[in-house]
Amino acid sequence: MSKTDPGRFFEDYRLGEVIRHAVPRTVGQGERALYHALYPARGALHSSDTFAQSCGLPVAPLDDLIAFHTVFGKTVPDISLNAVANLGYAEGRFLAPVWPGDTLTSDSEVIGLKQNSSGKTGVVWVRTTGRNQQGRPVLSYVRWVMVRKRDPEAPAPEPVVPDLAESVTPDHLTVPEGLRFDGYDFDRAGEPHRLGDYAPGEIIDHVDAVTVEEAEHMMATRLWQNTARVHFDATHREDGRRLIYGGHVISLARALSFNGLANAQMIVGLNGGAHANPCFAGDTVRAWSEVLDCAETNVPGVGALRLRLVAAKDGPGDYALKDDKGKYLPHILLDLDLWVLMPV
Amino acid sequence: MSKTDPGRFFEDYRLGEVIRHAVPRTVGQGERALYHALYPARGALHSSDTFAQSCGLPVAPLDDLIAFHTVFGKTVPDISLNAVANLGYAEGRFLAPVWPGDTLTSDSEVIGLKQNSSGKTGVVWVRTTGRNQQGRPVLSYVRWVMVRKRDPEAPAPEPVVPDLAESVTPDHLTVPEGLRFDGYDFDRAGEPHRLGDYAPGEIIDHVDAVTVEEAEHMMATRLWQNTARVHFDATHREDGRRLIYGGHVISLARALSFNGLANAQMIVGLNGGAHANPCFAGDTVRAWSEVLDCAETNVPGVGALRLRLVAAKDGPGDYALKDDKGKYLPHILLDLDLWVLMPV
Amino acid sequence: MSKTDPGRFFEDYRLGEVIRHAVPRTVGQGERALYHALYPARGALHSSDTFAQSCGLPVAPLDDLIAFHTVFGKTVPDISLNAVANLGYAEGRFLAPVWPGDTLTSDSEVIGLKQNSSGKTGVVWVRTTGRNQQGRPVLSYVRWVMVRKRDPEAPAPEPVVPDLAESVTPDHLTVPEGLRFDGYDFDRAGEPHRLGDYAPGEIIDHVDAVTVEEAEHMMATRLWQNTARVHFDATHREDGRRLIYGGHVISLARALSFNGLANAQMIVGLNGGAHANPCFAGDTVRAWSEVLDCAETNVPGVGALRLRLVAAKDGPGDYALKDDKGKYLPHILLDLDLWVLMPV
Repeated sequence: MSKTDPGRFFEDYRLGEVIRHAVPRTVGQGERALYHALYPARGALHSSDTFAQSCGLPVAPLDDLIAFHTVFGKTVPDISLNAVANLGYAEGRFLAPVWPGDTLTSDSEVIGLKQNSSGKTGVVWVRTTGRNQQGRPVLSYVRWVMVRKRDPEAPAPEPVVPDLAESVTPDHLTVPEGLRFDGYDFDRAGEPHRLGDYAPGEIIDHVDAVTVEEAEHMMATRLWQNTARVHFDATHREDGRRLIYGGHVISLARALSFNGLANAQMIVGLNGGAHANPCFAGDTVRAWSEVLDCAETNVPGVGALRLRLVAAKDGPGDYALKDDKGKYLPHILLDLDLWVLMPV
Repeated sequence: MSKTDPGRFFEDYRLGEVIRHAVPRTVGQGERALYHALYPARGALHSSDTFAQSCGLPVAPLDDLIAFHTVFGKTVPDISLNAVANLGYAEGRFLAPVWPGDTLTSDSEVIGLKQNSSGKTGVVWVRTTGRNQQGRPVLSYVRWVMVRKRDPEAPAPEPVVPDLAESVTPDHLTVPEGLRFDGYDFDRAGEPHRLGDYAPGEIIDHVDAVTVEEAEHMMATRLWQNTARVHFDATHREDGRRLIYGGHVISLARALSFNGLANAQMIVGLNGGAHANPCFAGDTVRAWSEVLDCAETNVPGVGALRLRLVAAKDGPGDYALKDDKGKYLPHILLDLDLWVLMPV
Repeated sequence: MSKTDPGRFFEDYRLGEVIRHAVPRTVGQGERALYHALYPARGALHSSDTFAQSCGLPVAPLDDLIAFHTVFGKTVPDISLNAVANLGYAEGRFLAPVWPGDTLTSDSEVIGLKQNSSGKTGVVWVRTTGRNQQGRPVLSYVRWVMVRKRDPEAPAPEPVVPDLAESVTPDHLTVPEGLRFDGYDFDRAGEPHRLGDYAPGEIIDHVDAVTVEEAEHMMATRLWQNTARVHFDATHREDGRRLIYGGHVISLARALSFNGLANAQMIVGLNGGAHANPCFAGDTVRAWSEVLDCAETNVPGVGALRLRLVAAKDGPGDYALKDDKGKYLPHILLDLDLWVLMPV
């Protein structure tokens, strides 16, 4: 019997199956320091125990995307090792902060299957849940990927396409227990802008830019124990280039967005997202955000801002995302739809 | 209103103004591990809890330059985002160790302003103080930078040039509470040399050298939340090169100086310093030190050594720093004047 | 007197001498996070406190090779700064787990000396022991290196070649106190294979590959405070290349071996090893393992697997290591002989 795992193919998934992913991971101050070295992250709540305490939390939680990457990374060997494309995200909810010392596990339920007309690939929808050492969910999201079939002749399953919400509604957002912004120090946070200073339709150019290096994206991707070979092996693609993990671009864009969104302290919802074009070392990543919605939460003083966060390889130009055929322009890397929490 | 911060221009500073910088930062074992991965730091006091305990400290403090970079990094968005040049340092005093878990904040008082004759720029002097979560100062230093004016027509302020000490006198150096060297283990520290083995005028070639990579200086600079675009964005300068944060060279030189100064355990004073020439990825950094002074402190057995620490891109040659017009030679990167503590 | 240390030459070693190496080092969660960023390490026992607890340990120990690199790194200034070649390892035993917060010291006893016939170099055998802050040995191994003489005319010492075991016998392997695999979760560990699923002679191609970057190997090597100039200084070798620390390749190979050996949770023995050819940035490292032996330990349910772990620059081909003259093939980087613990 071969000992190495070639990953799953389309015909290996069964509707309703729950996949218990390897490897549980304890995350802590080391992961935080690396996160802050790999991305220009500066949110005060995740940088400072004292700032977090002034916001009602016991200590600074780990950056929300550390939770996302850790939970996501575990799914790769089971879900996307043979994926042709990462098609989308939906119904992402950050359900509890991850604290230094927490151990995260990741499980995915297969909630949709649909073979493509070519017969060579199919789309798999999974709902992935990350849990801490108490078994409490910290993150849940739906992802769908196009996966190769091992055997094109294998019979197609009954097609099931899940009915996914267009976005997480504000009443489904979870404000972390104890979070309050009534003693918020805007000087120390870095900007004076409150929720009421943002209006739907407003576009914020985050100005800063980062040129990406091979060592950085590989270190990040390994840290999340995401092992897809295409990120690490320069001999794998014909062009000798290593594809950058899409999540690396998400974290870069989120961190760059500090400049203009310094008070967008926590991500609580992931409504959707597309990795519009691949990113490679040497690319200079920029970011802008469009305000999509402003909402109240069930905690007075804590507001929610819905944002379209875009990463691009070139300057923002006129902030166009797609051409007239609806195809992403070649310099657009990421188009992400998020809910964040901010002082009202 | 634009949400992004373009940084301050010369006419935005007021004499006596205190700027409360963002973002408070909790530093710990993760930052230490990264520091030791990014620089060849080997000082026993900062590497080992047991060695630190044998020197009277509760645990190993974080490397002194972690404190410096963290406090400095916070000033960048308010002080040097529009700086043309980082002109100098003075009156730097390390006032208390930073322990793993401490949260640092940074504030700067404007203590000098002088418009340049061109009318396009001016010099701003600030005294920056870093404090821990108890509000206790851990570091204080003066820095002056040349900053662009937003509007060349803006009126010049009354020129005020602060009167700065040529160096910190030994009686103003703070020996950390409890520090003692009477049980000092020279084998484990790495060298046998005591304060008495050094003499003013002596030059020590630190022999080792490090070729710098883009990923390394960017990770370091991000870790200190220093966001000046010129360090990260290869499209920012016309020559496509990313300027390395001057503090990266300081840490490289300090770490390289272990070979010859292994017992120079703690930095307690920063008398002055110049970033003589820019450093870029691919440069191979070497270092040498000149002993400037030896002094006693108020703690028996704990001596202070004043050093000129030099970083250069090429070999030391005859250790010359400047040409006959007083201009730094092109291979000199850093000329730093420090006080360090060492067993007598 | 020169303050900088040129390292020891062959004639500086005395049989029976014990060298107390600098610098004691406290290792913790920061070093672990960096290890997981630098290598694709995924072993559940070292990744997760909860998994480690389910195996009877109080928390996740640090990766075994963190202990090895830390202990080894300290020996470099005293043993291999003037080494021409790292000739071999033997009798390596991992004697106790290293826990986050432990402080490691390293001492080496000179157990063999033999001048080469050229009179210009000699071979030095040392037995190095790493100890934690309680003085308890955590690791012991023999290494021998070829070292230059300072003075070719210096008299040759009486040749003494130590009698080294061909391998550590299973009864000399130390199973960490408390370790048990009776509640082992194979799903979360990543693979279903038990000791009984492996057979001597079996070869496992680990499939994955990593292209190595300068920034990565230098960060790793610095983290272990290994200061050999050849790893960091691009001007040191005539070809302008930085030689990658052999231990970096060991960790890469070990981490890559997860795919096929996910349950090989702990390294307990190092029977031998050769750095067959140098590795440079840009090389793509692959790995395979050959099962050499299966054994019981004194703990029911905990088995020991003896492996030949090979790293290579190109594909495994027919898994040949040497040419017909017994010389390593040019693409072979590492040939390591290990004992690991695995559920029976």
